[in-house]
Amino acid sequence: MATLFLIVLVGKIIAQDKIEKWDVFELTLKGPATGNPFMGTELLARFTNGDKVYEQEGYYDGNGIYKIRFMPDKEGTWSYVTTSNKKELNNSKGNFECTPAATNNHGPVRVKATYHFQYEDGTPYWPFGTTIYEWPFQDSATKKQTIETMAASAFNKARFLAVPPYKDRYITGPLTITTFPFEGTNRDNWDFSRFNPAYFKNLDSCVAELRRIGVEADMILFRPYDKGKWGFDMMGQEVNKRFTRYMVARYAAYRNIWWSMCNENSFIRNMTDEDWDELFKLVQEKDPYHHLRSIHNADRIYDYAKPWVTHVSLQYYNVVKAPWGTPLLRDLYKKPIVNDEINYEGDIESRWGQLSGEEMTYRFWNAYIGGGYATHGETYKSSPWISYGGKLIGTSPARIAFLRKIVESGPKGGLEPIDQYWETNMAGKAGEYYLVYFGKDKPAKWDFVLPKRDLTNGAKFKVDIIDTWNMTITPVDKEFEIIPMPDNRYKFIEKNKASIKLPAKQYLALRIYKTADGTKVANDGRHELE
Amino acid sequence: MATLFLIVLVGKIIAQDKIEKWDVFELTLKGPATGNPFMGTELLARFTNGDKVYEQEGYYDGNGIYKIRFMPDKEGTWSYVTTSNKKELNNSKGNFECTPAATNNHGPVRVKATYHFQYEDGTPYWPFGTTIYEWPFQDSATKKQTIETMAASAFNKARFLAVPPYKDRYITGPLTITTFPFEGTNRDNWDFSRFNPAYFKNLDSCVAELRRIGVEADMILFRPYDKGKWGFDMMGQEVNKRFTRYMVARYAAYRNIWWSMCNENSFIRNMTDEDWDELFKLVQEKDPYHHLRSIHNADRIYDYAKPWVTHVSLQYYNVVKAPWGTPLLRDLYKKPIVNDEINYEGDIESRWGQLSGEEMTYRFWNAYIGGGYATHGETYKSSPWISYGGKLIGTSPARIAFLRKIVESGPKGGLEPIDQYWETNMAGKAGEYYLVYFGKDKPAKWDFVLPKRDLTNGAKFKVDIIDTWNMTITPVDKEFEIIPMPDNRYKFIEKNKASIKLPAKQYLALRIYKTADGTKVANDGRHELE
Repeated sequence: MATLFLIVLVGKIIAQDKIEKWDVFELTLKGPATGNPFMGTELLARFTNGDKVYEQEGYYDGNGIYKIRFMPDKEGTWSYVTTSNKKELNNSKGNFECTPAATNNHGPVRVKATYHFQYEDGTPYWPFGTTIYEWPFQDSATKKQTIETMAASAFNKARFLAVPPYKDRYITGPLTITTFPFEGTNRDNWDFSRFNPAYFKNLDSCVAELRRIGVEADMILFRPYDKGKWGFDMMGQEVNKRFTRYMVARYAAYRNIWWSMCNENSFIRNMTDEDWDELFKLVQEKDPYHHLRSIHNADRIYDYAKPWVTHVSLQYYNVVKAPWGTPLLRDLYKKPIVNDEINYEGDIESRWGQLSGEEMTYRFWNAYIGGGYATHGETYKSSPWISYGGKLIGTSPARIAFLRKIVESGPKGGLEPIDQYWETNMAGKAGEYYLVYFGKDKPAKWDFVLPKRDLTNGAKFKVDIIDTWNMTITPVDKEFEIIPMPDNRYKFIEKNKASIKLPAKQYLALRIYKTADGTKVANDGRHELE
Repeated sequence: MATLFLIVLVGKIIAQDKIEKWDVFELTLKGPATGNPFMGTELLARFTNGDKVYEQEGYYDGNGIYKIRFMPDKEGTWSYVTTSNKKELNNSKGNFECTPAATNNHGPVRVKATYHFQYEDGTPYWPFGTTIYEWPFQDSATKKQTIETMAASAFNKARFLAVPPYKDRYITGPLTITTFPFEGTNRDNWDFSRFNPAYFKNLDSCVAELRRIGVEADMILFRPYDKGKWGFDMMGQEVNKRFTRYMVARYAAYRNIWWSMCNENSFIRNMTDEDWDELFKLVQEKDPYHHLRSIHNADRIYDYAKPWVTHVSLQYYNVVKAPWGTPLLRDLYKKPIVNDEINYEGDIESRWGQLSGEEMTYRFWNAYIGGGYATHGETYKSSPWISYGGKLIGTSPARIAFLRKIVESGPKGGLEPIDQYWETNMAGKAGEYYLVYFGKDKPAKWDFVLPKRDLTNGAKFKVDIIDTWNMTITPVDKEFEIIPMPDNRYKFIEKNKASIKLPAKQYLALRIYKTADGTKVANDGRHELE
């Protein structure tokens, strides 16, 4: 017993007494620095609070320091004990208090109701993502600016690379990397058995900064884009697995982490879908908190139906060229659809970076009206946001913020297609709330007709006319009472066949919401496909 | 030996001496009629011709008659020997001559180059399907009329039910069924252990008639639509399997058979996807010739990626509302996409049967421009083609025939998307042949610009202007010479920036074909997704 006690004192250096729910409890242990501590050290801690038990792996952080990061998800006293094949790290014990989450801390994001998301505390989360692939590898001023820009924007998810491309893949410009994930200075002398803690300490602070401002860190573990220069896309599966395990040990305790296994994975031509399966399963096994997991496809589309994929992180631009693309994918995958690459607003020579703000906004609306989500990015020559972060200069972010406000003021359960095989430009909550999006049409009027699902005879509605580009919401000064449409088994119509006058321009929408219930009408029991 | 010889003489009643390649060789055996010959009789024959060996199951056809139908796929002498657990049927031997196929006989249809089809003799097969769900159960005159109509049309695939709905599922009208697949007269007295040979003899002749006129029989084994009346949609999986096995034994030797496991399968609420997997695997195991296999979905979409599914037989109307829907499904499934239900041309009250001829034609063009296929149907109150067959009165069949001629005169490999993430309304063969479809747009001109893939500097092209609705093809009296487009890494342009004047109306297309090669231009090696 005396010996054991001594080991505990030696092993543990620092640990918090108290930590907010879903924050990072960090246990720091002193251990051997000799040999190669990265290799062959098994270290984990078992954390217990009543019936809650988690096992969290630790990692080596250099200079004889080992860390175990843990995300408590229950208030009260947690106790822990370490297990290691190294004597100094084994059987370190302790406990800490988990206090209530602060008001801006809602826990990790989970899948909700098949197609949507919510925070663990039940708060709805509607992703409005953006793309800042190489932001962690910029100078401090740029990183600070990126965080300030993000905090002032509507974006609440950031896609970025955990390892930068050899040279800027996206927009030509200076990118000087001097710190690498492995020991060494170039591909002739990497030591893939030794991680470089300094590199990851920077990433730590990036993930933590995003968490501080309430942004989900959709962190991409692997990427192509080495063009044979660094070789981080051809390390072999053993090193891929070691890297994945290290990343999970290091970042799983950040509540805002989402695991994106790879960007444009099929462009890493030497890796098969079976390799990705293996890495997915490793993350699934090692992450005690089961953060969201996906992968971002290129030409060969990974099968997002596989059980370890929590949501679809798609690159397929055409899907958002009409609002019915996303519902099709919902039906095929039965998972949330995040259109994570729909081209970028910008003016570069590559055609994937030439969207107008109008087109980006249009694609966003199509994604959300389709019951899914989308991710923004900017590729202006003068401000390469998708590469470096910095500042946003495009015209779509304000409109995306406008859309977010509309979505947030809509149904708690998110926007759902209402009659998706027939009324492709309508989403909301049947019987209660409808968003009708006219896209590039220029309607001069809209006849008040709704699909019958969950409608009641005599129900009343109010309508707002939304100009999605000019960001105006104009209430229509009238209440609309509906009746079943004569000679039509699918529709309800305003009792006096009312129409709504519209300004005959592009990018209009209607918001229609119930103000009074009517009387239920017998359903003829037919399937929607009929 | 003497005993054996005797059995052979007793067992075999009739068999052809000579049969055309891919026709049905039918071996008729006399066996026991006592007990229940449908149950517990194992009978198969092994057919051998050099290194070709097939095992084909037989079936009981009533009155002590057992049959084995075989489709030889190699010319020359085939020998066979039967195996059975019934002495009278066991060890029947013989041989026959397989002669060359007649000119209108190209063998069964196979998948070709991932997304397309061809006959086994290498002749391309582009499906232009139609739908005649209940045609086998009509009177002789109507069946004859259906065959005459089909033979005079462009349709070369027919979707129909092997078991009719209890009452007309599609269009109200008289349907009197007195012969059923099982012994009995109604659901109170079905004997699911005994098939009714008379019922299947009618189906035999229907499949054979379609084969005679060169139409693929896309025969649907199961269907919902019983509404509790006959109970053929709730026979239980043991009977489902017996029925499937009987159908395969009976129809696999017809070269024009395609197996469609079910229509709108998820509407049979008591059957799971695992049940369908099992039936698929049974067909796969029992059909020696591996005819095409699919299933036609309703609201829950069966996973067409499963290995026993040869092609996608989809019901998802929205997919053909733009030409990019089908390429998306090609990318997801890596199989031929047959949009087998895209609503029907007609005037019934159900909205799935209200397409105009223009809209049906438009959806067809979208499917083929997307590198896939589509299936027609007509639902006019005055002529319920999709139910009974009979005659076609719609306006789309002539336009579909026109499209078929265009497709058949195009690239042998079928229409392929050329730059699918960007030029969504173009298909053909890169560098050689382009169909550009303008759908509902009303272009007054088209600038001669093509995506660079496989183009050469100085190549020359001719152009036809196609009016897909009025079925006219108007050659443009000019040859177009192309150069790489200045300041654009993706395009070639006519050297003098030529445009083509168009009549500013809907449903136009261009056919652009190479008349002279140019000089290869260095490719910058970028991925198409870029």
